[in-house]
Amino acid sequence: MSGLKIEIITIGKELLDGRIVNRNAAFISARLFKFGYTVERHTTFSDDLQILRKGLQEAYERSDLVIITGGLGPTLDDLTRIVVAEMFHCKLSVNALVITDLQKRFGKELDMLQNQATIPDKAQPLLNSVGIAPGLLFLTNDKMVVCFPGMPAEMQPMFVNTFLPVLQERHPPLHKHEVYLYACFFKESQIDPILRELQAQLPELEMGIYPSYSHVTIMLSSENKASLEYAEELLKVQLDSFLYTAATGKIEEAIHNWFIKEKKTLVLAESCTGGTMASLLTAIKGASEFFLGSFVTYSSALKQHILDVPKKILETKGTISAECVLAMLNGALEKSQADVGLAISGIAGPTSDSSHEKIGTMWAAMQEKGSSPYVFRLQITGDRQTIILKTAYSLFGILWRKLAKNIPPPQGTGH
Amino acid sequence: MSGLKIEIITIGKELLDGRIVNRNAAFISARLFKFGYTVERHTTFSDDLQILRKGLQEAYERSDLVIITGGLGPTLDDLTRIVVAEMFHCKLSVNALVITDLQKRFGKELDMLQNQATIPDKAQPLLNSVGIAPGLLFLTNDKMVVCFPGMPAEMQPMFVNTFLPVLQERHPPLHKHEVYLYACFFKESQIDPILRELQAQLPELEMGIYPSYSHVTIMLSSENKASLEYAEELLKVQLDSFLYTAATGKIEEAIHNWFIKEKKTLVLAESCTGGTMASLLTAIKGASEFFLGSFVTYSSALKQHILDVPKKILETKGTISAECVLAMLNGALEKSQADVGLAISGIAGPTSDSSHEKIGTMWAAMQEKGSSPYVFRLQITGDRQTIILKTAYSLFGILWRKLAKNIPPPQGTGH
Repeated sequence: MSGLKIEIITIGKELLDGRIVNRNAAFISARLFKFGYTVERHTTFSDDLQILRKGLQEAYERSDLVIITGGLGPTLDDLTRIVVAEMFHCKLSVNALVITDLQKRFGKELDMLQNQATIPDKAQPLLNSVGIAPGLLFLTNDKMVVCFPGMPAEMQPMFVNTFLPVLQERHPPLHKHEVYLYACFFKESQIDPILRELQAQLPELEMGIYPSYSHVTIMLSSENKASLEYAEELLKVQLDSFLYTAATGKIEEAIHNWFIKEKKTLVLAESCTGGTMASLLTAIKGASEFFLGSFVTYSSALKQHILDVPKKILETKGTISAECVLAMLNGALEKSQADVGLAISGIAGPTSDSSHEKIGTMWAAMQEKGSSPYVFRLQITGDRQTIILKTAYSLFGILWRKLAKNIPPPQGTGH
Repeated sequence: MSGLKIEIITIGKELLDGRIVNRNAAFISARLFKFGYTVERHTTFSDDLQILRKGLQEAYERSDLVIITGGLGPTLDDLTRIVVAEMFHCKLSVNALVITDLQKRFGKELDMLQNQATIPDKAQPLLNSVGIAPGLLFLTNDKMVVCFPGMPAEMQPMFVNTFLPVLQERHPPLHKHEVYLYACFFKESQIDPILRELQAQLPELEMGIYPSYSHVTIMLSSENKASLEYAEELLKVQLDSFLYTAATGKIEEAIHNWFIKEKKTLVLAESCTGGTMASLLTAIKGASEFFLGSFVTYSSALKQHILDVPKKILETKGTISAECVLAMLNGALEKSQADVGLAISGIAGPTSDSSHEKIGTMWAAMQEKGSSPYVFRLQITGDRQTIILKTAYSLFGILWRKLAKNIPPPQGTGH
């Protein structure tokens, strides 16, 4: 790891009001981490002049690299430019490079653009390939401050294409030894004793356990490559049937890779997950190589008319039943001719429906071509959105363990 | 607004590495905001003893209420309990309330539970209704510090059901006057001149503009209710055809409400958005009242066999074409008998496919029963995930404007 002290400051009242989730800090952190840099702190303030002045000054004193997003726009609550100009004791003036770029991309509508091309004299502009506001880069002898627009679509290409090369040139990352292991259906509390033992053996090892929906990430890190490899091997033996491999750590990526490798196809029939499983699978590039589609049959009528679920099942057993998901699975497999199918129906709440089933009750069915189907029930807890995500990730875990490790689905387990 | 200075600290290396997005800070902020409290700062640290000690102490000195999530688990990298015990100069001991609760919920398996029932003497435990680790609440004469587990499924019910009532009792929120207006397809730079004029007229008004995918949120706030109402009326007149109403500010909620009110049904046929539109619509409770489902026909074969897109269209025009989305729309409407249908097919990248279409090219079709269909093209920029989300939100905006305001879709617009 580079010894650079890095801090990310995201500016915006919308973050402090909880109206949006801080994806910018996560994006920047992930990109830096990938290239061997570690972020020490995230901070979020509102666009208030006093708070900004104090907060940015503190960060500048504390860190070697301060990355700021937000507050660069042309509107009256955008104060970042003013505050950084003060911090670096310089004036704001129109930058010729930015004017030329904006004219090229937006033609002659320069009313607003004139304002946006006005930047602190000591900053180098980072041109915006998507929107209007340029980024700002300040380099001093030993520190860097960089400001990006808050819109992810504008910040991301600017960060990756323009800023990252400058950072890598100025502060090449040190060589790092780090290993991530991903385990599904393995609880933090089950892994902990194993890691404590390992820590006693290898005190130089740094470790972390990060739980998520239905899986955990285990991080091992050390300057000593040999002990890291030893620890990795040991854990791999102990946790074997739970471990999956994925560059992003996502179980859906492990599934994606399995299907591509095996040249098989997948179809889903989703009711209560409402397209979430399909959406997670298709977020990964190249999903079209194996993913045929999902029948998001939210209504009973679609289950009956599209997936041929018999009317009698819907009337006597209801949509949240072993019989219904098995019929959904059969319909989806037959109509798509996929190699593997998975069907899910349940109730995510917050109120029960005509089925009177307990909230969080899920029936699922799964089948590989040429084998018998599995039908199983899950009981999931949480609010509506948590239930939907936990259901999706539990099913991904169950599907992956069956496909890759030949471990059958649990029978009536709660998650 | 209450004058309470509130700060949220989220602990976890997984946040600083960008492996997970900080949903906890957003959740807590949104709940507090709803009840009239404003958060002044979010900070994220890793589970490092020195950084934690210093960071928590600074926050405690600076703020009236410090809310901490993460680092409460039983594992070796969970240090929050130790650091807060130091901060309040007290020992850790086994808490009888927690032991009783854990025994009741987990039976006699007390090995790990003993550890988890050990809390700082000066803390009140907040019982965990989902997992194991209890929350911790410290009350002094004028300050509060509260620690929650990092898992959202455990933190959320503890925050809402146990902590929030204590906060409301101790610090009743002041009456606030705040107005949010939501506009779709209206750019930040278009709204700014209008707001600047308003600000000149009503200097006591606080304002903010928060852009998001295809829409912006305008926040107005003032102690003076009359000027707030005047400003709201003025903006409503000027922005009328762009404004939508939704408690959460989400355009999909405006669509949800329109369908419920009009007692109409909706069906989707999604290709490149891969179930994302269905997933966003079904995240809102009660979606089953109008949303019949989505044909996530990711493969050409499913487009042909499920939605009856003629083979000839697929061969001569390709899947990213006016003809293909119109056929998808017809198939979805016919098979579902929905009142309104929307179909989308395009290329999200990052690499082009056999169609050789430019990345971000989208064709969409939309129809209300009894009217003619609209077929239109969008050109979207960004990385894969941005293109998918921008496409989904652009289509929600277009759909809503057509349904609620009778404004036809744009012809060949870039977004």
